[in-house]
Amino acid sequence: MSQRVREILSWYGSDNPGTLTNLARILGHGKLAGTGRMVILPVDQGFEHGPARSFAPNPPAYDPRYHFQLAVESGCNAYAAPLGFLEAGAREFAGEVPLILKVNDHDVLSDEKDPTQALTGSVRDALRLGCMGIGFTIYPGSTHRLEMYQQIRAYAEEAKRNGLAVIIWSYPRGSSISKAGETAIDICSYAAHIAAQLGAHIIKVKVPSAHIEQEAARRVYDKERIPLTSLSDRIRHVVQCCFDGRRVVIFSGGATGSDAQVLEEVRGIHAGGGFGSIIGRNVFQRKHSQALELLATIMDIYASKAESLPSSA
Amino acid sequence: MSQRVREILSWYGSDNPGTLTNLARILGHGKLAGTGRMVILPVDQGFEHGPARSFAPNPPAYDPRYHFQLAVESGCNAYAAPLGFLEAGAREFAGEVPLILKVNDHDVLSDEKDPTQALTGSVRDALRLGCMGIGFTIYPGSTHRLEMYQQIRAYAEEAKRNGLAVIIWSYPRGSSISKAGETAIDICSYAAHIAAQLGAHIIKVKVPSAHIEQEAARRVYDKERIPLTSLSDRIRHVVQCCFDGRRVVIFSGGATGSDAQVLEEVRGIHAGGGFGSIIGRNVFQRKHSQALELLATIMDIYASKAESLPSSA
Amino acid sequence: MSQRVREILSWYGSDNPGTLTNLARILGHGKLAGTGRMVILPVDQGFEHGPARSFAPNPPAYDPRYHFQLAVESGCNAYAAPLGFLEAGAREFAGEVPLILKVNDHDVLSDEKDPTQALTGSVRDALRLGCMGIGFTIYPGSTHRLEMYQQIRAYAEEAKRNGLAVIIWSYPRGSSISKAGETAIDICSYAAHIAAQLGAHIIKVKVPSAHIEQEAARRVYDKERIPLTSLSDRIRHVVQCCFDGRRVVIFSGGATGSDAQVLEEVRGIHAGGGFGSIIGRNVFQRKHSQALELLATIMDIYASKAESLPSSA
Amino acid sequence: MSQRVREILSWYGSDNPGTLTNLARILGHGKLAGTGRMVILPVDQGFEHGPARSFAPNPPAYDPRYHFQLAVESGCNAYAAPLGFLEAGAREFAGEVPLILKVNDHDVLSDEKDPTQALTGSVRDALRLGCMGIGFTIYPGSTHRLEMYQQIRAYAEEAKRNGLAVIIWSYPRGSSISKAGETAIDICSYAAHIAAQLGAHIIKVKVPSAHIEQEAARRVYDKERIPLTSLSDRIRHVVQCCFDGRRVVIFSGGATGSDAQVLEEVRGIHAGGGFGSIIGRNVFQRKHSQALELLATIMDIYASKAESLPSSA
Amino acid sequence: MSQRVREILSWYGSDNPGTLTNLARILGHGKLAGTGRMVILPVDQGFEHGPARSFAPNPPAYDPRYHFQLAVESGCNAYAAPLGFLEAGAREFAGEVPLILKVNDHDVLSDEKDPTQALTGSVRDALRLGCMGIGFTIYPGSTHRLEMYQQIRAYAEEAKRNGLAVIIWSYPRGSSISKAGETAIDICSYAAHIAAQLGAHIIKVKVPSAHIEQEAARRVYDKERIPLTSLSDRIRHVVQCCFDGRRVVIFSGGATGSDAQVLEEVRGIHAGGGFGSIIGRNVFQRKHSQALELLATIMDIYASKAESLPSSA
Repeated sequence: MSQRVREILSWYGSDNPGTLTNLARILGHGKLAGTGRMVILPVDQGFEHGPARSFAPNPPAYDPRYHFQLAVESGCNAYAAPLGFLEAGAREFAGEVPLILKVNDHDVLSDEKDPTQALTGSVRDALRLGCMGIGFTIYPGSTHRLEMYQQIRAYAEEAKRNGLAVIIWSYPRGSSISKAGETAIDICSYAAHIAAQLGAHIIKVKVPSAHIEQEAARRVYDKERIPLTSLSDRIRHVVQCCFDGRRVVIFSGGATGSDAQVLEEVRGIHAGGGFGSIIGRNVFQRKHSQALELLATIMDIYASKAESLPSSA
Repeated sequence: MSQRVREILSWYGSDNPGTLTNLARILGHGKLAGTGRMVILPVDQGFEHGPARSFAPNPPAYDPRYHFQLAVESGCNAYAAPLGFLEAGAREFAGEVPLILKVNDHDVLSDEKDPTQALTGSVRDALRLGCMGIGFTIYPGSTHRLEMYQQIRAYAEEAKRNGLAVIIWSYPRGSSISKAGETAIDICSYAAHIAAQLGAHIIKVKVPSAHIEQEAARRVYDKERIPLTSLSDRIRHVVQCCFDGRRVVIFSGGATGSDAQVLEEVRGIHAGGGFGSIIGRNVFQRKHSQALELLATIMDIYASKAESLPSSA
Repeated sequence: MSQRVREILSWYGSDNPGTLTNLARILGHGKLAGTGRMVILPVDQGFEHGPARSFAPNPPAYDPRYHFQLAVESGCNAYAAPLGFLEAGAREFAGEVPLILKVNDHDVLSDEKDPTQALTGSVRDALRLGCMGIGFTIYPGSTHRLEMYQQIRAYAEEAKRNGLAVIIWSYPRGSSISKAGETAIDICSYAAHIAAQLGAHIIKVKVPSAHIEQEAARRVYDKERIPLTSLSDRIRHVVQCCFDGRRVVIFSGGATGSDAQVLEEVRGIHAGGGFGSIIGRNVFQRKHSQALELLATIMDIYASKAESLPSSA
Repeated sequence: MSQRVREILSWYGSDNPGTLTNLARILGHGKLAGTGRMVILPVDQGFEHGPARSFAPNPPAYDPRYHFQLAVESGCNAYAAPLGFLEAGAREFAGEVPLILKVNDHDVLSDEKDPTQALTGSVRDALRLGCMGIGFTIYPGSTHRLEMYQQIRAYAEEAKRNGLAVIIWSYPRGSSISKAGETAIDICSYAAHIAAQLGAHIIKVKVPSAHIEQEAARRVYDKERIPLTSLSDRIRHVVQCCFDGRRVVIFSGGATGSDAQVLEEVRGIHAGGGFGSIIGRNVFQRKHSQALELLATIMDIYASKAESLPSSA
Repeated sequence: MSQRVREILSWYGSDNPGTLTNLARILGHGKLAGTGRMVILPVDQGFEHGPARSFAPNPPAYDPRYHFQLAVESGCNAYAAPLGFLEAGAREFAGEVPLILKVNDHDVLSDEKDPTQALTGSVRDALRLGCMGIGFTIYPGSTHRLEMYQQIRAYAEEAKRNGLAVIIWSYPRGSSISKAGETAIDICSYAAHIAAQLGAHIIKVKVPSAHIEQEAARRVYDKERIPLTSLSDRIRHVVQCCFDGRRVVIFSGGATGSDAQVLEEVRGIHAGGGFGSIIGRNVFQRKHSQALELLATIMDIYASKAESLPSSA
């Protein structure tokens, strides 16, 4: 095991060896094995946005086995998906790539200002499917957020007792937050911190903008002159907000963008000490060869020496 | 066991042998045994619409044993009904036809824009009555949908652990969806995909129209030029949206229509690679002999060589 | 055991011998023993309407032992009451009359358009008090009906596992139903059918009027020319709607009426193939001797040869 | 054991010897031991109204041990209080006075038209603290009443299984009841009857007024000429409404009044066959010596020969 | 063990030796060991207000280990924090300082007039992390307060069974309480009393103002001439309201103030017989050396001879 992975595992002193083993498996798999960085392939968009919107641009992706194969071939650290998608390939690809069961999901078939998610999988499902961890989405800002925190609390307790890793997708939204606020730096870092306090081992947030949403926060950002200009500044701040860099924080890119945009973001994440990317639509909605190419480029960036690693001393 | 049934079973690699056995029983029973196609007789309309509206057109159908008998004689793959109806014949017809316990139901005695269903049966009920599986209705689009997803999640986990098959009736409705939207191709295929992600072995949806309900979906359908003109096109799309054809999708016909209409739909389902029909009112509301005749004709269509089978490679 | 009772028990092929034993005890007790007809004494009006409104007309009825005694002396098939009333006499009258524990109740101390009931007893209570079955009220038409269906589902499953009989009081009411609709023939028979589908062994509904509440139902009643003119016609229809007569359906009389009215209704129930009456206020609100007299007359009618028995072939 | 206590215990034929033993302990303790009458000291006002409003008039009463001591010295049959107060003295006073754990409570820190209570103690708490029974408040008339009935149903089942007595405080209030209606004779007796039906061994209500709240009740009170003029008439009616006197009914006095008023009420309760008083603020808000004096006078009244005992034959 | 600690433990006669052991550990740790006074370091502000607002003024505080270290070095009696923060240091600092797991939390990402909290930790979490107790926040005055009381009831029962101490943060707020009312003396002492009745071993409230919020309370404060002028008067009243001083009550200081203000408050708490302070932002938001200095000064005050100790005889 690399020194860096050993160091990362040292941050999780309250977890049992089973959970550490699964974290080590994720950190030790694929092209970024041992670097302490990770790229995860998530495919829950069929549930979240609908199958045609997700897979019609690249029809082979309708087949759940496509994504297992893509994660394996590209050397991703892990593949995350809802129950149905994992059930449809877990036997065939058993042992080939670390799996994360997304245990709650949401669709866009009903308008709502304060969204929540449905529990669609269980820790027992994750165990029987051979997963390394569970993935759970929270919506800080929604009026339903407290109930979601309670759900992940119970799931996380059960997962940790059974030696699984806990990954929290922390996506601010709801009637008290503006559209710009959903990626505002104050909100994004707050949402990441909440996920850390809820006991997440790995935290996934969106790439933050320089917008500040809450007045009480703006006063502090101004007074303390927290640097927010560059993406790497903002990434560094989010990572700092997660226990001063002692939790693994990864970033998602959102909707499809040009390769240049995607790689620009990855470089910013890398430079700011982010631990990696979770990248779905930008990958599986393009042709297989192009997807492999993009993922290889991204992983090369993460494998390169970063200018500054998050402080963990 | 036929090659086709063996192939279908291979899609369910995460299920235990008990569940595969019950899926094999359904696929191996009746006139369509071994073809990979199925016709299921569902009789929950007494609960859903009222007894007189359901059975007065053919009074012998008031007797629950009538439907067991009809399913047996016609060679249906399975008979699905609520608790009371199954309890009233399960001993007399034990072993004669695969049974599916409909474990949730709804009535039309209260107006509501966002419907939900009541849990009316349990996995333990299904086991004690000798059923092969459970049937569960979800209403994607209803504000109560997330709660329904959570219910079927728990039911499905328990059913699979006990070796039962899981059939999801996925009927979009609710305040965010127009009447036309309930059978719109984008909504229908989305609803089918959600059922698949929730872990259904068999998915039941309504025959889709060419209407597109959601703007975000329309842009993709237009851009990717997804063919929707013929019924078989639309069936093919729905089947594709269910894990690229690696889940069994069957279609219901809705209210009574002329024989010509019904058979036209069946031919479309068949041509599009649909796995069969679930057909109730059109069968049990006509005289016994006519019902047998219609079912025989339908099964003949499904038993014929289809122009194109769903891709499963 | 009489041939008729044996026949009735044959309808419940999915129940265990324990439940059949208790059904046989109810059908085999009192003056109507062995006839397949039954008269049940229910006394939950103290809870439902208040003690003075219920018992002041005949003050000895304040004493819970009064009703046990009345049920025993009159030869009723069973006595049904809430927890407190049963606890107050179950030891003294142990073994003298079959008991039914009413496990949910409602009062009139708060106005509400969509009523529900409180769970006030349990299956374990019924077992420790030596009851033969549980009684449960549902309000089809109330916005809370689905929750009530779920409650009786769980209660019925537990009751049947423990060898108890399940009696459902099915009383339509709620904001979607007019006052006349509460006893309308379409609603009444629908409510009875729902109780049967929920797994009731014995179903209690109100005597139906010729009114039709729902337009969709009216079209069918008209088209199929279902006879509704006489009370016996309507009773016959309700019985038919309960699995073509293969479930025991009994009728309640409502508020106090003249003896002539009460007996007229009983004759109609009898002629229409109803299985009996559940009669409370009309009995315990009159003097003891008059109550015995009225019950004797009612039982004589039910013991006489009916013109037509419900079809059960 | 006195004949009267033996008679009272005979009313509870469905309870186990454990519960009878605890009822006998309450009836056999203190100055009224063996009379079948009881005076209970309840001190939940700190929670219900606030500490200063409750204890500032007599500051030693801030100390929880004060009330144990007062109950012991005065010879009350039992002392009832919430969890915190009982925990603070149960070891020091173990075995000196029967304890009743008040298992739900309410405060006045939020305005509400339809109040409910919070569960603040459990049957297991009552057992570990050496209590003889649990006390539970219901608010008949509140829109939350049905939920409260369900809570006490579950608590009472567990309490009885564990040999504890069940005392229900039945206080009508809520948006459907006028202020005068909260103590109206029809509402008060209805509330007492509901408590009896819910399985209470001891029922606590407020002293009823001659007001009649509900029209449907008024018609019966008028027609049956139920005497309501004197307090003893009304007490007699409430007792009759509790299973014709076969349940123990005690009365609370409400806010502080003059000694003359308090004793006048006690004489009315006594004359009407009430089983005693539950008296808090009128006792612990005065000086210790005066409290003992008042309680002694009250107990003397209850110990005297009553003009009429409740019928129990 | 000091006489004073022995005396304090004597107040908790209903707790098991396990809980007393943990209370003794808290009272016996740090600079105030044996004095019966305590200073607790709480760091839940990252969750409650956001990470930047909490930690940017003193960036080393982003690291969860910083706070463990601070609590150890300063000689605090205990360190309290949410799940994530404790998990991140519990192994490294095992046995160095008593830990309290904050088991519910709240954020400021959604506007709400009647707040509640999310359950974010469990008693089992507290046990596996080696904590001495659990911390729970209630909001008396919120429409959700009754549900919160029920939650802490269940948590406290489980905690006490497992030998843990229970600390309740009692913060009045909600739509029925004015901003000034949140620290009003009548509301503050009422909130403290509720916490005591709910079974708290240690109660945390805000420093009370002389404002009186409720009219019914004002009449009593005026009539009984309760002294409220000085802070020590008000502290004394709050302590009296917690079982006449037989429960440990500590006070929080709220937002950052000048040292003079903070120390002035501490002197008032000390003089009034308060048991100590729980002080977060005023400590960890300043430089490490200054924090140690302030804490030392505070502890010196508490270690000095108080003018009046709370009565506990």
